[in-house]
Amino acid sequence: MEEQVSAEKSDGMKQEWVNLIRVFTCPEDEKTRDVLVHHMRQILFELHDFLIQNVGITEAVSLKEISDRCTDTVMNSLPEKRLADVVSGVFEEIAPHAVNVASPYFVGHMTAAIPYFMVHLKAIVAALNQNVVKLETSKMLSVVEKQVVAKVHRIIYQKDEAFYREHVQNTHTSLGSFTEGGTTANLTALWVARNRALGPVGAFEGVEVEGLPAAYAAHNIDRCVILVSRRCHYSLRKCGGILGIGNGNIIPVPVDRTNRMRVDRLAEMIEGFKKEGRTRVAAVVTVAGTTETGNVDPIPEISALCRKEGIYLHADAAWGGPTLMSETYAHLLKGIEQVDSVTIDGHKQFYMPMSTGMVFFKDPTSLDAVAYHANYIIRKGSVDLGSKTLSGSREANCLILDSAFKIMGSRGYGMLIDHGIELARSFAEEIERRGIFQLVTRPELNILTYRVCPAPFQEEMAQASPERILELNEHFNEVNRALQQEQREAGNSFVSRTVLELETVFPGFPEGKVVVLRSVLMNPLTTMDVLRDILDEQEALYADWLRGTSTRKGRNREDAI
Amino acid sequence: MEEQVSAEKSDGMKQEWVNLIRVFTCPEDEKTRDVLVHHMRQILFELHDFLIQNVGITEAVSLKEISDRCTDTVMNSLPEKRLADVVSGVFEEIAPHAVNVASPYFVGHMTAAIPYFMVHLKAIVAALNQNVVKLETSKMLSVVEKQVVAKVHRIIYQKDEAFYREHVQNTHTSLGSFTEGGTTANLTALWVARNRALGPVGAFEGVEVEGLPAAYAAHNIDRCVILVSRRCHYSLRKCGGILGIGNGNIIPVPVDRTNRMRVDRLAEMIEGFKKEGRTRVAAVVTVAGTTETGNVDPIPEISALCRKEGIYLHADAAWGGPTLMSETYAHLLKGIEQVDSVTIDGHKQFYMPMSTGMVFFKDPTSLDAVAYHANYIIRKGSVDLGSKTLSGSREANCLILDSAFKIMGSRGYGMLIDHGIELARSFAEEIERRGIFQLVTRPELNILTYRVCPAPFQEEMAQASPERILELNEHFNEVNRALQQEQREAGNSFVSRTVLELETVFPGFPEGKVVVLRSVLMNPLTTMDVLRDILDEQEALYADWLRGTSTRKGRNREDAI
Repeated sequence: MEEQVSAEKSDGMKQEWVNLIRVFTCPEDEKTRDVLVHHMRQILFELHDFLIQNVGITEAVSLKEISDRCTDTVMNSLPEKRLADVVSGVFEEIAPHAVNVASPYFVGHMTAAIPYFMVHLKAIVAALNQNVVKLETSKMLSVVEKQVVAKVHRIIYQKDEAFYREHVQNTHTSLGSFTEGGTTANLTALWVARNRALGPVGAFEGVEVEGLPAAYAAHNIDRCVILVSRRCHYSLRKCGGILGIGNGNIIPVPVDRTNRMRVDRLAEMIEGFKKEGRTRVAAVVTVAGTTETGNVDPIPEISALCRKEGIYLHADAAWGGPTLMSETYAHLLKGIEQVDSVTIDGHKQFYMPMSTGMVFFKDPTSLDAVAYHANYIIRKGSVDLGSKTLSGSREANCLILDSAFKIMGSRGYGMLIDHGIELARSFAEEIERRGIFQLVTRPELNILTYRVCPAPFQEEMAQASPERILELNEHFNEVNRALQQEQREAGNSFVSRTVLELETVFPGFPEGKVVVLRSVLMNPLTTMDVLRDILDEQEALYADWLRGTSTRKGRNREDAI
Repeated sequence: MEEQVSAEKSDGMKQEWVNLIRVFTCPEDEKTRDVLVHHMRQILFELHDFLIQNVGITEAVSLKEISDRCTDTVMNSLPEKRLADVVSGVFEEIAPHAVNVASPYFVGHMTAAIPYFMVHLKAIVAALNQNVVKLETSKMLSVVEKQVVAKVHRIIYQKDEAFYREHVQNTHTSLGSFTEGGTTANLTALWVARNRALGPVGAFEGVEVEGLPAAYAAHNIDRCVILVSRRCHYSLRKCGGILGIGNGNIIPVPVDRTNRMRVDRLAEMIEGFKKEGRTRVAAVVTVAGTTETGNVDPIPEISALCRKEGIYLHADAAWGGPTLMSETYAHLLKGIEQVDSVTIDGHKQFYMPMSTGMVFFKDPTSLDAVAYHANYIIRKGSVDLGSKTLSGSREANCLILDSAFKIMGSRGYGMLIDHGIELARSFAEEIERRGIFQLVTRPELNILTYRVCPAPFQEEMAQASPERILELNEHFNEVNRALQQEQREAGNSFVSRTVLELETVFPGFPEGKVVVLRSVLMNPLTTMDVLRDILDEQEALYADWLRGTSTRKGRNREDAI
């Protein structure tokens, strides 16, 4: 009896194993192939229909309800679903409660529609499953990555053909690399900057080997700082923390009314540290497309200053970088060819799927400052890309960008940039035309901020006492905070909100914060008609607020943040 | 005339814009849909046919030739290919020179076949294009990530139902997160460890804010070290460098003959640092599945020691973690429920596509040590996952693992683990059975190392003088190095090679290095028949070598590394 049970079990397990083997094997029969292709068809076209049920993160089903559905933490032992069930499960249970970032009405964040072919390209990358950490698991894809990196490097730095011929496939130098996002790209650049600022001297082997405290002693300093635009991305503070410099030593440089770094203040700060004598400025970070307002620092002036002072200059162009592909607007990033390194995100204005970043270096030997080797891979002198990246194993996203360039050309990307910038300008005009809105930051690239604040109040605030300004400002902060949430939850459209210093609106008035609505215009399907709808809805929500009929008031909200 | 040209140009641009809009729009007509689906069919099935032309990175087309094809660095301005051309281009020009990591004969690295449905799941993630950095761009996917993280956490830590009910969807605590790979996971864990070891004290705000030199002063120490297994992954040294501790302060603890950390030596080292008084041990890192040999440290003993000494213990189970899903072999990782944090890679034995890692924390408040906030997202108290991750924007890979669990069950994963471990044992027997091989490291999980070294030489070395041992060893290093390259380039199969300390083979004899062949057995399609073929080929290559007919000799090699 026992034997029989055991035999049965063994038969069952044999069948399970056969099933398992099957999912690892390319099916030969047409019927199975058709089923797999059918699921791809669903993914390509039907998913869309479920997603468009809502644009924002509506309250139709509250976050609490969704969370309550996802509390089971015991993993199933036996298979419980086939791929078909999983796909329909995603459609019915997940997609309707995901966020339709591809909607033309979703203009609040730097995540938007991507071209259809991107899904195919991502599927190719997954099907190839190459690992570009080393040649032995990628071969040609390592070579492709070097080429694609060189292509973008060339758009930024515009060196001559001889330079690129020397470096494009040079296994001893590196023009940059793909990363998993902007944070990793910025971290890589500042890691290089830190190591160059605190390199070997005498018996000291360099900060990478001996650490920061030993480096400060060897370099005879008490402190290391990185100067960044006050409008820089929060990841730069994080980088300061990770790299051991301390996020308190990531020092914000004041910006002018257009959110651009004040070069005079930067010069004063550098001068101050020099006089004081025991602080090393390891790097300056300039922004080409601030996250909140889309402004570009005066890179030529900053770059000239850094060169004079011998300070490493990094440009965070995670957002704005692809502007270089626009014939009309590339000039907005002038000077970027002079900076030591540049971050550009692939999943932003290169319209690649999450998560792709890139970092580029003017000096092809820069990444030597962070090189690592191991016995089993990335041996010294090898072609293995992993020797000079923060990450180890890494997918071949270079293939996606390489293919996208072929399909759209730099001109296609340029047209997307032009559309965003020109749409932002028209949107700004429309905002100013309507009496109830106040344009808070004028678009330079394709991002702008504004708020509900009717003209009479704007006029009053322009000449009111500081107390009254703060009072009115606080009132409109509350209005705009509520309005953004109401609109988001209604699910027709989505703008984001952030908080800027009051000085941005009232020069010489640094106290207090302004809650603003933020629009990021990167979706080519977004038109002025769409944006007028969004403003109409906001006007209506404000009218409700004034009439006191807002559904918001007194509601118990578990995700108001 | 000029006007006409301008009008034509404008018409041309209008058409370009229409084309551009089209790729962002879900096609309504069946014909277009069929074309897009056809390409997915090609990706699913035809890609395979091109990939299987070679297994390893053959010399059929040399790296130099491939590099020479990828030297154009001028980006095309106009679109030059349609998706159809890109897909066929990938098939014909790239896939044949990529590496067929999915082949059962590719047993050299931790990259292998993935189930077919993974390509669908990756396509879903791309099509949804959610960004889990914040709720506003992911909603339900943020919730799903918390649930999946909790499921794996439960497999590791086995806390009770009440614990998981409290934390699974708790927005104030975190059981861990997805990362882009093992390096980022290890870096996250050691970042937490560093910040806990050097936290706020008195007026000192903590290392994250004030940096390492200030932290050493405030904590009254001169040095901070992290003790790691000598067999640990190179990423841990890298983490030491990045975190500002210095990779020279990542101190290797000796291992025994089975490549497991010597707890006696660890205890001595900790004792030594305590006596000396000015060095803080910020963390110990134990390995559950060494990269080169697949061994597991004695976690219970290491854990008991660390608890006694109050030292943070991290487990790098990037490779071995999923062993916990095997009913038969989970015990190999016993004690892992006691460590403070655990790294597991998704793209290794969870069989997910590149690039996915995960990190888990026993204490759900651990990640508070590395929390960051910003005005426009991840505001304090929000549900936004980005507040406690190294990365910012991040794709929703949780959906892939969640679905894979549903399709395969923990039991399916367990069977894959069992297959690998049992196959490794049989392979070891076969290696020992054949007279010309020497098993260098016996498999504990599913990795083993061996080398060509015929029995008579093994016997001679067992009793030879140190000089003779080194001489013979050098000879076989040369043989095995050459043989691994020959086999790789022949393109039928692939094992990797690495270098181990001689002591592993000859106890008490630490001088010199042993070049070994390394097999990683994770592909369910790999059988003993396959492995026997691989050994046969190696025997034949060695016979060629002995006859002096090896093609290798005197060849000019540009990628011998």
